[in-house]
Order: sequence, then structure tokens, then C-alpha cells
Amino acid sequence: MCARRKGSPGRRKSSGDGGDVRRKAPWYPSDFLDALHPQCFSAVLYIYLATVTNAITFGGLLGDATEGAQGVLESFLGTAVAGAAFCLMAGQPLTILSSTGPVLVFERLLFSFSRDYSLDYLPFRLWVGIWVATFCLVLVATEASVLVRYFTRFTEEGFCALISLIFIYDALGKMLNLTRAYPILRPGSPAYGCFCQYPVPGGNESQWTRTKPKDKNDLLTMDLGLVNASLLSPPECTRQGGYPRGPGCHTVPDIAFFSLLLFLTSFLFAMALKHVRTSRFFPSVVRKVLSDFSSVLAILLGCSLDAFLGLATPKLLVPREFKPTLPGRGWLVSPFGTNPWWLTVAATLPALLLSILIFMDQQITAVILNRKEYRLRKGAGFHLDLFCVAVLMLLTSVLGLPWYVSATVISLAHMDSLRRESRDCAPGEAPSFLGIREQRLTGLVVFILTGMSIFLAPVLKFIPMPVLYGIFLYMGVTALSSIQFMKRVQLLLMPAKHQPDLLLLRHVPLSRVHLFTAIQLACLGLLWIIKSTPAAIIFPLMLLGLVGVRKALEWVFSPQELLWLDELMPEEERNIPEKGLEPEHPFSGSDSEDSELMYQPKVPEINISVN
Amino acid sequence: MCARRKGSPGRRKSSGDGGDVRRKAPWYPSDFLDALHPQCFSAVLYIYLATVTNAITFGGLLGDATEGAQGVLESFLGTAVAGAAFCLMAGQPLTILSSTGPVLVFERLLFSFSRDYSLDYLPFRLWVGIWVATFCLVLVATEASVLVRYFTRFTEEGFCALISLIFIYDALGKMLNLTRAYPILRPGSPAYGCFCQYPVPGGNESQWTRTKPKDKNDLLTMDLGLVNASLLSPPECTRQGGYPRGPGCHTVPDIAFFSLLLFLTSFLFAMALKHVRTSRFFPSVVRKVLSDFSSVLAILLGCSLDAFLGLATPKLLVPREFKPTLPGRGWLVSPFGTNPWWLTVAATLPALLLSILIFMDQQITAVILNRKEYRLRKGAGFHLDLFCVAVLMLLTSVLGLPWYVSATVISLAHMDSLRRESRDCAPGEAPSFLGIREQRLTGLVVFILTGMSIFLAPVLKFIPMPVLYGIFLYMGVTALSSIQFMKRVQLLLMPAKHQPDLLLLRHVPLSRVHLFTAIQLACLGLLWIIKSTPAAIIFPLMLLGLVGVRKALEWVFSPQELLWLDELMPEEERNIPEKGLEPEHPFSGSDSEDSELMYQPKVPEINISVN
Repeated sequence: MCARRKGSPGRRKSSGDGGDVRRKAPWYPSDFLDALHPQCFSAVLYIYLATVTNAITFGGLLGDATEGAQGVLESFLGTAVAGAAFCLMAGQPLTILSSTGPVLVFERLLFSFSRDYSLDYLPFRLWVGIWVATFCLVLVATEASVLVRYFTRFTEEGFCALISLIFIYDALGKMLNLTRAYPILRPGSPAYGCFCQYPVPGGNESQWTRTKPKDKNDLLTMDLGLVNASLLSPPECTRQGGYPRGPGCHTVPDIAFFSLLLFLTSFLFAMALKHVRTSRFFPSVVRKVLSDFSSVLAILLGCSLDAFLGLATPKLLVPREFKPTLPGRGWLVSPFGTNPWWLTVAATLPALLLSILIFMDQQITAVILNRKEYRLRKGAGFHLDLFCVAVLMLLTSVLGLPWYVSATVISLAHMDSLRRESRDCAPGEAPSFLGIREQRLTGLVVFILTGMSIFLAPVLKFIPMPVLYGIFLYMGVTALSSIQFMKRVQLLLMPAKHQPDLLLLRHVPLSRVHLFTAIQLACLGLLWIIKSTPAAIIFPLMLLGLVGVRKALEWVFSPQELLWLDELMPEEERNIPEKGLEPEHPFSGSDSEDSELMYQPKVPEINISVN
Repeated sequence: MCARRKGSPGRRKSSGDGGDVRRKAPWYPSDFLDALHPQCFSAVLYIYLATVTNAITFGGLLGDATEGAQGVLESFLGTAVAGAAFCLMAGQPLTILSSTGPVLVFERLLFSFSRDYSLDYLPFRLWVGIWVATFCLVLVATEASVLVRYFTRFTEEGFCALISLIFIYDALGKMLNLTRAYPILRPGSPAYGCFCQYPVPGGNESQWTRTKPKDKNDLLTMDLGLVNASLLSPPECTRQGGYPRGPGCHTVPDIAFFSLLLFLTSFLFAMALKHVRTSRFFPSVVRKVLSDFSSVLAILLGCSLDAFLGLATPKLLVPREFKPTLPGRGWLVSPFGTNPWWLTVAATLPALLLSILIFMDQQITAVILNRKEYRLRKGAGFHLDLFCVAVLMLLTSVLGLPWYVSATVISLAHMDSLRRESRDCAPGEAPSFLGIREQRLTGLVVFILTGMSIFLAPVLKFIPMPVLYGIFLYMGVTALSSIQFMKRVQLLLMPAKHQPDLLLLRHVPLSRVHLFTAIQLACLGLLWIIKSTPAAIIFPLMLLGLVGVRKALEWVFSPQELLWLDELMPEEERNIPEKGLEPEHPFSGSDSEDSELMYQPKVPEINISVN
């Protein structure tokens, strides 16, 4: 979701002029011919399952967040349409579009805002989308990518930690909400009684009303008098002309704890499978598959457990027909609805905030995917990518579908599954990396398959919500534990003699590292507090606030310290000697599998558009 | 419970003559004076909590295994009396007596046998105890400790693996039994209905009987007719002269899943705390405490969760008065009961089997505790120890209390908490080990406190059984994972290139290691099958069968291979060159915290009785 983005774009030569199309056109036929390799089959299966899982989980959460204004059906349709279009048109077709955490949070806040002020959500959202698309097109035209270089690791990780914590908090909160919807029966609670009552011959209406308790205390002493009754179960009772009476008829027992078990099982199973990759057991292929498919397998396990016991757990709500989740709306969003006209102008404010988000999420992912170390031959297309995202933003807003940007983690997994490696190497020797199978077909097939999954709706309704909440807890915890900031928080709890031998700790005194971590923690706490107030909708602006704090840190820390703890901002670079200071891998002592990805402050030169 | 016993007694010089008392007497006053040190306070607290936990868990399982013939009260009383007596009289007062896994399993089998053949259990058990005591006294008189040297690691670990698997199997089985006692309510199940019925004025008895369903189908169509009813909860209904009617009155919802949650929580929490010892976080003192008290803390967490939700989970059954758990029996067991007279002779057969168990468990633990590396000054007392165990065996049999032998793990923990270390060492340098505070007072205080815990009965009844099952799963898994055999089983699943660099693997070809492991697995499978048949009561004889298999392995493996895979039996030692073959630490590459303890085939010379 938000792994550390490699490489600050600060040193990137910005020389694009929008000629991405001209540059990518000659490769277009080979973008399909290069896909004719068996490896692409496994890549399609893996990325399809990951994309579908993502579409289900984000769709479920979007439906929850927007009270059905968007749902799983929209999520599937949007993913398929936007993803396939991007794969056909984009400058970097290895990118996988997806709903992302930050955009989901923004959408949730936008919906809350609309509900609180009684606005018509989808029309309001349409205008936000129109403005975001406009702003993004302006950014494409003005080659504004240079601005991204001010987002250093400090800013990115503060933001990423906040998003991850929101995920974790939401997953836990939703689980607790379930125990309210399905209360736990305590001994002596009045919720036991339930029977089926028939009209008494000669009885009168007052006898019926007496069976309705005024309050809890009334239940405990409630005398029904003479009733004509049976012990049929509530549905059967209704069918036979009786009335289910008593508080026990409406409570569903066992659901709360079973949901909690499903939640914990999915979470722990996914975590365990993820760690299989670094275990000593099984051949590396098996470990890779188990680890790559950890969330899919965890969902399958949860669904199997649920199906095996057959309890009435809350399930994923999937529409039975191909129509919008919200009843009564068509596929085209009306441009005004019941909103006043001036809201079309007011939408620029949230659009500005969302543009910051979209721009950052999209461009940083693009920088990662186009890094030199992946040896891409066909070149990047930063402007074309952002252009595509802007156009798709417009399309999805008009159709009331979720918004999409490049998803870092899933795109990296896509590239990883398409690695070309030398075959004839000695046993035990690692095969050498030759490059990536750069083509448009795998992504295209993935999204076509995703689109066809809409017909899976009758199957999807068997997925219990607690399982999806468990997977979201897993995503939040995984994202949180992958950032350097959390590694430094862990240092706070470690006695000095047990700390890993990090290069970072060799160059910066421990007390200074702790001070830096404490400042980041304080910022995070402040962000969390702001998020919990009605001002939460401005939270993309918090990013800019973080940049300000980072700028102020230059008064507290020396450039050398900041070089090791963070990255340098463009202005600072000139102030320190170039040689002998550039850290190669500040966290090379870390045992994280992401360490190579995460802690490489050395930035490759990337031409945004080579023309 | 059954960590690898260090040192085969094969090379021990057996020169004892029963003069242990004469040799230990001069130390007796210092055995109390040496305890005047603050360190002994923490040792007492730690071992007290471990002993009480053990007494609760074993008491709960004994009560379960013997249908109340023994229970938690007997467990506390027996632990206190036997333990205190042993600390006062024994040759090695650092030993902590306890119920052990093997003896518990034997007792369970003995009870099943008695029940199957309608025998009076406690009198039969009394005679078994009398014979075991007799046999043990004969063993003391004939200096039979030399026999132990034929139990090599192959035998010990096969036995230990079996015991651990029985623990795991039992813990899981008991949890599943709970879901039968507290059924899960499925939607549409007829278990919903419950109301409170009063006699109808002018109604007749037939109306009452109609509310009792003949079978499940009857419930679904059951028409009660005209009844005088209320919705009071079942206990309140009974109190007001009504009758709770309907299947829903007798089902307690939510208990099954909540029990499963408690079970998993206790197990996982104890496992996690145990692993805190090797984590990088927290100072070593904190980690040691968290790890040492892992099971106590897990029990406390489980009880807190249970108390917080206040559900009617099955609790530990503790008698309210100081009297035997089984109603109607006095403290003295009648010598015959309803059994025929010849059973007093027939009891020799199980007694012989139990004697093998007791002898092995007791002597091997004693060998470990008296190893040279602990630098004990006051000498051992192998014969005196076994004598004490035999006498206490007689006493506990007469009183109908559990049987006790030295418990390896808890005794080692006792010694570990009494280590004397040099104080004035440079920072960062490990303090040097000076010896153990050898005294009788800490053990004595622990067992006096344990005895006083009987008055804690009103508190103990708040401990839910699922929590104890979770702790037993933890004990089984911990014991199973601590033996070299399981490490070799893990090797079966590891590709060769990922295997740890074990000395064992450097000296024995991998295929031979796998063959040895496969033979052990086959033995274990056979033992499990025999255990599941009515022949299970002879299972101490299986040990001797294992010795036979081990002897036969000399035809399959070379002495050099056996030296690395197992230990040498006495006869073999003469056949191989002495020098350059003795492995120091075959598993020194292992990261297990027990590796030092477990894989040190080099055996110190121990004089069983130096006179």
C-alpha cells in the first residue's frame, strides 16, 4: 500500500515535453508480441487474484464508507475499465491501477462531509473529479513533477504511518461494531425468551400489546397471561400465522465470537504465510507462492471455516444484478442532483486536496517502477501516465465508479512476476537478472478477467465481512511495519547493546536518532488528532505541514544527520561535501525482506521524459 | 516436562552403598543458613507460582482423567506434603517434586482400566503404589542405577515425543468436547424457544407433558395450546413457581466460541511470552521475567478476559471444603474396597511398569541436576532421593493423593534462580558463575506456601478450563519442539541448501540422518497405535521395546554415525577409537535457547554416591 518510495525525484532532470506518445508508439506492436511466454500465464493468475482480492476488500470498505453509493460491483467494473484502459494507453503499462488506501480515506471523509451537510454525494463527487482531472492536466502541461522532490522520507513515512494506523483502527473498530450488532448473551440476561404466539380465541388486542416490553426491566417481570403458543422458530412461526414473541427471537447467538475468530484467523494466517518466504522450510518456489498468495489463501480459509459451520455471519453484500449498488441511480451521475449550483465551484477546494494526493501517489509509484535497477528498455512515460489517470478520473466520476491511481505494492509484484533471468547457471548460483518482460498483455488480461468476475457475484456473497476486516488489519500492519520510521520506534524499546548493527546508528548518535523519532511521533499524534476532528477533510494539506516541519528540522539537525535519518532537500545538497557522506544502505543490517527496497537513499538519475 | 536429559549415566561409576545420609548430615545446618540471601525471595516467588500453576493444571487434568478420584485439592495437598518432606529429607534438596506428564498418562490409563473392568480404583491404586514403593526400595538396595545407561537419546526422545503428542492430542480433544457440551446454535435450529410456564387454572397434567418434545422434529411442530406464560429467565422462572419450557432454556449460547478464543489466546500468549526471551526488545531482566512467567501471565490474561465478559464458561472445579474431591471417601484409602483379594497380587504387573517410569524419570532428572557444570559443593544423594520418592509413593497412595517424582524443567528453573555470580565485573562482560545456593529453605517455603493455597479455593474456581487446556497445549508444543528428534524431522522438510550448518550434518550423510529420523517416526507411529488399543497400559514396556530397536540399529548404522545421531551404548564404546570422534555440540548451529542443554553428548563423570 505505501512501502517506502525509492528515490527522491529531486535530482531528476525534468526535460519532458509531452512527447511520450511519439516515443512509446514504436514499441506498441512488441508490447503484445513480447507477452508470448509461459511466465506470463503465472503472472496473470497471481496478479488477477491479487487484483480481485483488492477489488473485493476495497469495494467492501467503499460500500461501508459511502453507505452503498459505491460498492463491490462498482469496484469490479471500475477496476476492469480503468485498469484495462490504462494498460492499453499508458506510458508504463506494467503499472497496475487500483483503489489505494489514501484515496479510500479521502473518499470516506468526502462522504461524511456530504452527509453532515446534506449534500447529494455523487453529483458533488462528480465535480470534485472534474476539477481533479483539470488540475492534473494542468500539472501535465506545466511539467510540475519537480515539486515532488520536497516530499522526503520524513513526509512520506509520516503520511504512510497515518494511513496504516487508520487502516488498523478501522479494521478493529468494524469488528467491535459487529459485537454490537450481534450482542453476546450473558447468563441471566433477559434475551433468552422466545416463543410463537397465536391469537387466543376470545382474546383481545391488549393481550398482544402486553407481549411488547416497555424496557429491559419490564421484560424481567413480564407476565404474558394466558396465551396460545408454540415453540416454532421465528420464520416458521410467521409463516404459520403466528407472531414470534420475546427478546430471544431477534438475537442471533454465537455470531459475535465466531466473527472475532474469523477475523483473527484471517489476520494471523495471512501474517504467518507472509513470513513463510523467509523460513527455512520448503523449496523457494513453494515459499514464494505461499507468501505471494497469503491474503488470497487467508480469505479462502476464512470462507471455508464460515461455510463449514454455516452460521449467519454478516456477508459481503454483492448486488444480484448488473446495476449500481445504490438503488434508483443510473450509470450516469447527474451533474447537479439536489445540490445548489455554487457547489460546482466549491468543489475546487476538496479537488485541490485530492489532486495533491493523486499526484503524489501516482508520480512516486511511477518513479519506483521506472528505476534503473529494473533495466527497462522501453522507457517511461510519466506525463502520459498522469494524463491517463486524469482522463480515467473524469470517466469514473461520471459513472460513479471508484477513483484509481497506480498501486505501488501490486505493481511491483507484477514486475517481479515478469523478471527475465538467465537459465544456464551452476547449481546453487543465483540466476542473473536480465530485465522485465515489458508488455501490455498481462495487465490487459488481468483486468478483462476482473471484469468478467462480476458474474461471480453469486459466489462473492459467501465471503464473510470479518474475514475482509482481518485482511485489512493485515494490510495495515504490513504497511506500518515496512517503514523505516517504525524500525526507529522499535529502537526506542531496545537496550543499546541489543540493537542491530545499523549503518544509521554508526553515523548518528543514538540520542539524536531518538529525538528525530520522537518528533515524527509527535507529528503523527497531531495528525491523528486533526483527523479525528471535523477538519479531517483537509488532510492532504497535512502533508504540506509535514514538509514545513521537515524544513524546520534543518535548524535542529545537521545536514549530515539528516542525510542519514532522512534525505536531503534540494537546497541542502549544495551545503555539504559530496564525497564520503552519501549513505549506501543505512539499514543494511536489517533483516526485513523489504530492506533493499526501503533503505537505499542513493537515487538513480531518471529522465521523466527522454526526448 | 521432558527436555533432553543431559549425560547418559552409562559411564557413571556406581560405587554407592547407601551412606548418603551420613554424607549429607554434616551439611544440614548450613542447608538453612545458606538461604539467608535476598536472591532466595525471588526464587521462592518464581518457583511458587510455577508450582501452583503446575498443581492447578495437573490437578485439573487428574480430576478429569480419574473422574474426580483425584482433583485440584488432592494435587495441592499432595504437592505440599510430598514436596516439603522431600526438601527436608532428600539428598538433593534443590529438586522440586511434581506430577509429571508420564505419570499422569499412566494414572489415566490405570483409571480407564479400572473403570473398564469395574474395579474399585483407589484401593487398586493403593496396592500399585505399595508394590512400586517396594520395587523402588529393592532398586535402592541393589544399586540398580546402572540399568539407566541403556536408555540412550533415541529411547528418551521417542518416549518424550509420545508424551508430548498425547498432551497436544488431549488438549485439542478436550476443547472439541466443550463444543459438544455447549452446542453452537445454527440458524433455523429449534434451540431458540424458551419461556416460563405456570399451571393454567383448570389445566391438567397432560398440558405439561406436551411441552416436553419427543425428538427434534417434534419440536418444530410443537403446539403448546393455551398456556399461562411469562418471559422470565429460567432461574427466575423456577424461583417464582413456574417451569422453564422449550429447548432454548437449556442451551447456553456463545460459550463454545468464547472457550475456543480463551484456549487460543492462552496458548498463543504463552508461546509469544516464551519467545520474548530471545527478542531484541526490553532489558534482559524484563525479558527473563516475562519469559519465566509466561504460563502464569497467560493464565491471568485468560481469567481476566473471562471475568471481563462474565460468561458461564466451564470453570476449574475446586471443592469448597477441605475434604477429598470424590464425595463419600475419607482421607485414608481402604486397602480392599470392593475388589477381590487376588487384585493385591495382580497389582504387581502395573506396579512393575510404573516402577520403570518412576525410576527413569527420577534418576535421569537427578543426573541432570547433579552435573559437574553446576559446581555443587554439597554432593548428590541418588539413593536417598529414590528412597524418599518410594516412601512418599507409599504415603500418597494411602492418602489417595497424586504420585510425585522429580520434575526436570521446574527443578532446573529452581537451580537457575539460585545461581551465585561474581558481582564486580566490567560493564558488558558476562558475570562469572560461582555455583548454586544449595539449601533446603527455598523449596520448603515454596511447598508450605503451596499448601496454604488450598485456602485459595474460592479464587481458583474463577479459572476457566479452556485456559488450562491452552496451557497444556503450550506445554506439549514446548516439550515437543525442544527435542533433537523434532529438529531432525524439520530437516526432512528443508531443502538441503537452507539447512542450518549443524555439526551433525557435517559428519553424517543427509540420507543416513533422514533414515534414522524415519525409523524414529515409524517407532513413534507404532507406539501411538499401541497406545490407542486396550494394550495401552503396558506402555512403560514400550520403552524397553525402544531399547531393543536401538540395539538393532547397530546393524544398520556404523558406530560413528550412531555417535553423532544418538549416543553409544556401553558395549559399543569399546569398538570405536576414542579420539577425534567425540562430538562436542552436534547441534551447535541451532538457534534454540535449549541447544546448549540439549545437544551436549559429552558426559561428565558423576559419582552416584561418593563415599
